[in-house]
Amino acid sequence: MSVVNRTAHPFDKTRFDAVLNRRFFYAPAFEIYGGVAGLYDYGPPGSALQANIIAEWRKHFVIEDHMLELDSTNLTPATVFETSGHVARFADWMVKDSKTGDVLRADHLVKGVLEARLAGDLEARGKAAEPREETKEDKKRKKKQVKATAVQLADEVVKEYETILAQLDNYGGPELGELCRKHDLRNPDTDNEVGEPQQFNLMFASSIGPTGQHPGYLRPETAQGHFLNFSRLLDFNNGRVPFASAQVGRSFRNEISPRAGLLRVREFTMGEIEHFVDPLDKSHERFHEVRDTVLALLPRDVQLSGSSQVVPMTIGEAVDKGIVANATLGYFIARIHSFLLKIGVNETRLRFRQHMDNEMAHYATDCWDAEIHNSTGWTECVGCADRAAYDLTVHANKTGQPLVVRVALKEPVVTERETAEFNKKVLGKTFGKDAGLIQKVVGEMDDVKLLKLKGELAQGSTTIVAEGKELTLTAEMVTIERKTFKQSIREFTPNVIEPSFGFGRILYTLLEHSFWSREQDVERGVLSLPPVVAPTKVLIVPLSAREEFDPLVREVSSKLRKAGIFSRVDDSNTSIGKRYARNDELGTPFGITLDFASVQNRTMTLRERDTTDQLIGSIDDVIAVVTELVDGTIEWKEACERLPKYDGVQAVE
Amino acid sequence: MSVVNRTAHPFDKTRFDAVLNRRFFYAPAFEIYGGVAGLYDYGPPGSALQANIIAEWRKHFVIEDHMLELDSTNLTPATVFETSGHVARFADWMVKDSKTGDVLRADHLVKGVLEARLAGDLEARGKAAEPREETKEDKKRKKKQVKATAVQLADEVVKEYETILAQLDNYGGPELGELCRKHDLRNPDTDNEVGEPQQFNLMFASSIGPTGQHPGYLRPETAQGHFLNFSRLLDFNNGRVPFASAQVGRSFRNEISPRAGLLRVREFTMGEIEHFVDPLDKSHERFHEVRDTVLALLPRDVQLSGSSQVVPMTIGEAVDKGIVANATLGYFIARIHSFLLKIGVNETRLRFRQHMDNEMAHYATDCWDAEIHNSTGWTECVGCADRAAYDLTVHANKTGQPLVVRVALKEPVVTERETAEFNKKVLGKTFGKDAGLIQKVVGEMDDVKLLKLKGELAQGSTTIVAEGKELTLTAEMVTIERKTFKQSIREFTPNVIEPSFGFGRILYTLLEHSFWSREQDVERGVLSLPPVVAPTKVLIVPLSAREEFDPLVREVSSKLRKAGIFSRVDDSNTSIGKRYARNDELGTPFGITLDFASVQNRTMTLRERDTTDQLIGSIDDVIAVVTELVDGTIEWKEACERLPKYDGVQAVE
Repeated sequence: MSVVNRTAHPFDKTRFDAVLNRRFFYAPAFEIYGGVAGLYDYGPPGSALQANIIAEWRKHFVIEDHMLELDSTNLTPATVFETSGHVARFADWMVKDSKTGDVLRADHLVKGVLEARLAGDLEARGKAAEPREETKEDKKRKKKQVKATAVQLADEVVKEYETILAQLDNYGGPELGELCRKHDLRNPDTDNEVGEPQQFNLMFASSIGPTGQHPGYLRPETAQGHFLNFSRLLDFNNGRVPFASAQVGRSFRNEISPRAGLLRVREFTMGEIEHFVDPLDKSHERFHEVRDTVLALLPRDVQLSGSSQVVPMTIGEAVDKGIVANATLGYFIARIHSFLLKIGVNETRLRFRQHMDNEMAHYATDCWDAEIHNSTGWTECVGCADRAAYDLTVHANKTGQPLVVRVALKEPVVTERETAEFNKKVLGKTFGKDAGLIQKVVGEMDDVKLLKLKGELAQGSTTIVAEGKELTLTAEMVTIERKTFKQSIREFTPNVIEPSFGFGRILYTLLEHSFWSREQDVERGVLSLPPVVAPTKVLIVPLSAREEFDPLVREVSSKLRKAGIFSRVDDSNTSIGKRYARNDELGTPFGITLDFASVQNRTMTLRERDTTDQLIGSIDDVIAVVTELVDGTIEWKEACERLPKYDGVQAVE
Repeated sequence: MSVVNRTAHPFDKTRFDAVLNRRFFYAPAFEIYGGVAGLYDYGPPGSALQANIIAEWRKHFVIEDHMLELDSTNLTPATVFETSGHVARFADWMVKDSKTGDVLRADHLVKGVLEARLAGDLEARGKAAEPREETKEDKKRKKKQVKATAVQLADEVVKEYETILAQLDNYGGPELGELCRKHDLRNPDTDNEVGEPQQFNLMFASSIGPTGQHPGYLRPETAQGHFLNFSRLLDFNNGRVPFASAQVGRSFRNEISPRAGLLRVREFTMGEIEHFVDPLDKSHERFHEVRDTVLALLPRDVQLSGSSQVVPMTIGEAVDKGIVANATLGYFIARIHSFLLKIGVNETRLRFRQHMDNEMAHYATDCWDAEIHNSTGWTECVGCADRAAYDLTVHANKTGQPLVVRVALKEPVVTERETAEFNKKVLGKTFGKDAGLIQKVVGEMDDVKLLKLKGELAQGSTTIVAEGKELTLTAEMVTIERKTFKQSIREFTPNVIEPSFGFGRILYTLLEHSFWSREQDVERGVLSLPPVVAPTKVLIVPLSAREEFDPLVREVSSKLRKAGIFSRVDDSNTSIGKRYARNDELGTPFGITLDFASVQNRTMTLRERDTTDQLIGSIDDVIAVVTELVDGTIEWKEACERLPKYDGVQAVE
């Protein structure tokens, strides 16, 4: 929108949180019962914002690329997640406080305590004669939650702690337990020792049906619903790949001790796309459209070298150089980028970070996260993984259902090979039930072995060994001949490229990026959400709730509704300025004032949220202009050319 | 749409089911794992249809009436449902097969077996000399699942069975068990006896957090999320009632043995509206807009008289006569009616049935169901209940949080009453810790008692008894005087009117109503879904997949997308007629054909699904017309006036 100084005041997390809570963007679920960690309800502006983000997501991805949308169940029988690997591996290591029984994530405990000790060391050295040099990491640690005590550590201990922290993602449960014992790491809340780390599966378990015999889980991702329906989706797409399925739905993860607001929750709305592609051809027919998009990339190699400096690069170059594995992955990374910018994420606070080998999910072969910077640091908001053929393969193996694509080859592949034909009658008569065994063993022979057997049989007979038995074959029983085979169908398991969106995280970071305070009034918060996602597009403000304004309010509401624009009326008993201020906090981009002039002359004023500038025009002209503003076909600058500026005497701010 | 003979062939459930399955409207979830009863996945046309129904629902209810939308969690701590009564009462009676352990719903067992016996009796009598008269109910029973054997029953047994069936909803578990024993009702699948009925709670249980100490349930309705957030919603609405909140989301019910496809499932998408209203004023400011809507009503009295004959009546008359309890309930019933017609439900197969006292949910005081007729009979698809103040009251009592509305009274209410004032110093000195007891007992006295006490104290002293203690009061300790009180605020717990929509049931019945076969071609199914809900609005059919059509296909796709219209291309290798037939089954209302004439002259044809009529025009003219058709601003008849009829030689059907 228009250029306004939005950095006059530094971001104030306390004020920001207060606005979101007071205006009911979201709130702890079951608040009147004391709440439950990791569960949040979205109020009217929050749910409208989320619905608008999802609607734009549908337009940007599903409709634009003709994806096949589906809606699968949350409840899932246990066997599905046994096959997918989630029962065995979708888990975190937790430790229990030896006295209170409180549960902590083991890696979070190690991280928190060691960082606190390093911070304490720094503080102690600061007081001492020769302080050690404060690193950037030290600066971050100072902000962390576990309280530091000023105790100096030996230099080699500092070094050991830093090594542990750098490798934290590499440790399994036994190693984390060993670290707790060796370094006496205790629950920082109670100073009690903790027990041995135990694996805690993050899926919520339940039981389907009345007998308790059918264990199930709530899905932790929507993806399995796509994979299990693969054959139906392929059929719907006339048997052709590539194609993508898409789904918006809830997922559930029983986080051990969620404390990070919307950034780590136990129930959340996701959007997942599964793009099914020929493993031999991961090009994308629309890649040329995004080739020149410049992205802030943080490749694996850069991270391994110890740096977190992003590399600006076009996606075309990244794919050409093999930094991003293939064009389909590249296409989606660029499309995720343009989607996030469209809904209002600040481009300078967006980067794409490649997963390192040891942090990838069990099913992924390559993965890039869209990370959005916010007051807690960089947060993964979208993952873009190449799951290869993992999921379709394991489900096909388990169920015996072929989850494959069959394509007609343009040129049939002709091959020749030795082939054994059996005289089953003679075989049966001679060997009884061992006849099948012979057919199996001979049937599995390759050309070299078959040719050897052929030579031996040509001499009369030969003995083969199968399951410890010696069986004598004669030429009468088997004929070996060279035959020609023509293969006109190629059958393959497609690979899957999966962009996976956490809408709650996107929504939260977007709210942070949109929040600022006016230079002249730090108390007044403003949410500069783009019209496309703003919960309410237009605020209608009658001078008062008096009846004489009712017909106009109804007329304007109805005309906006017909134009497809969601408006709200604020006729509460307070000044127009206060009402606008309240709706600046809700992110409402445009306001319409109806006053006595409106009643007399059928004119109204149009106010823009960020500049607080106002224009004036006839009711129909203003509605026409605001419709185009909301649709995004014009900007405020162009609106200013279409309608005269309003500088009436009325004190509206 | 246009008038076509849609009743040429009777509804064929087998063919209908085959079409929905083949075209992936929906399918059993986890099908490749053998499926799970009561769980279904929606494929591309099914999920698009549901999304369109929900979008229209939002427009029709949420936007039109400025409702406050919210999005609350599925996971819910147990204590919430203990308070709401669901833990104790949201249950069905089930019986177990004594040998296999299979579980059946007790009322369904009784109904199924008795109906089968009555059908068998009828069959036996048919063969005998004097058949008893076949009733309408008998005719229905013949279609039921439990197999009937031709055994004649004594006349008094027939009568007894019929009485039991008529009162089935009145029986509790012990009575159902008694019936099974007395009439030897067995599991029809195994002919084994069944055990004593046990109550089975229909909520799915889980555990929140890693310690297993926080039991929770998946919500069986979204409503509690509204009630728990009531104070925040009221605040958002500037403290005023009436207002409504609205929510679309999943709900979960662990049905005992679901067998009715989408009509009885374990996980489903609901839309719920909670309209909060002053219990003393249940009028509705927009009731006059719907007053003349004629509805097919089936009031409680009619049903109690043994009839199921609907009464056509305007909602105005029904409210005036007290048949529908109040205007707000009436407003919503009429709005539900217009919503269902708008999305394509057949008006002649829609009725509103009032609940009888004994079938109402534990929280409701009045309830009307929108029932839609389909091949299984009448199915409740929308409930419209007056939950009175039940929910807000129980949650407020449990949590101690006031869930009330406070309104300024126009005229303050002035009251006079006797009031006791205590001399706390003397009281404390005399009675020590019993001083508080005295204040409590006296404070609770009404005017009559206080005046008596006043009289006694005027005589010097008196003795009162509190918690078994005799305490002597003197005039020095308490002064009793008549005082005037002015009340300027009225505080009340609002009542709740709740329209509650099961989208899966609506979707299924709508599909049945939309399905027919062409007179000349019974094999070809057509789904006459209105454009507003049709999964795809326009099918683009190039003559072939040859490259020369690509630029035109892209141009038309892109222009339709810009006009906000969802189109699909079918360039598969089959005749245009077959491709249209396939998309008739998907309910696609309009088709555009691109052929060589399109390449040469930039013209294209426009086909209407129900009539199969075709028009022709320039690309831009056709796009303009089809945009208006999809938006519903014109009908096909008007389109025929805007574009010439196409009667080209090309064989498209």
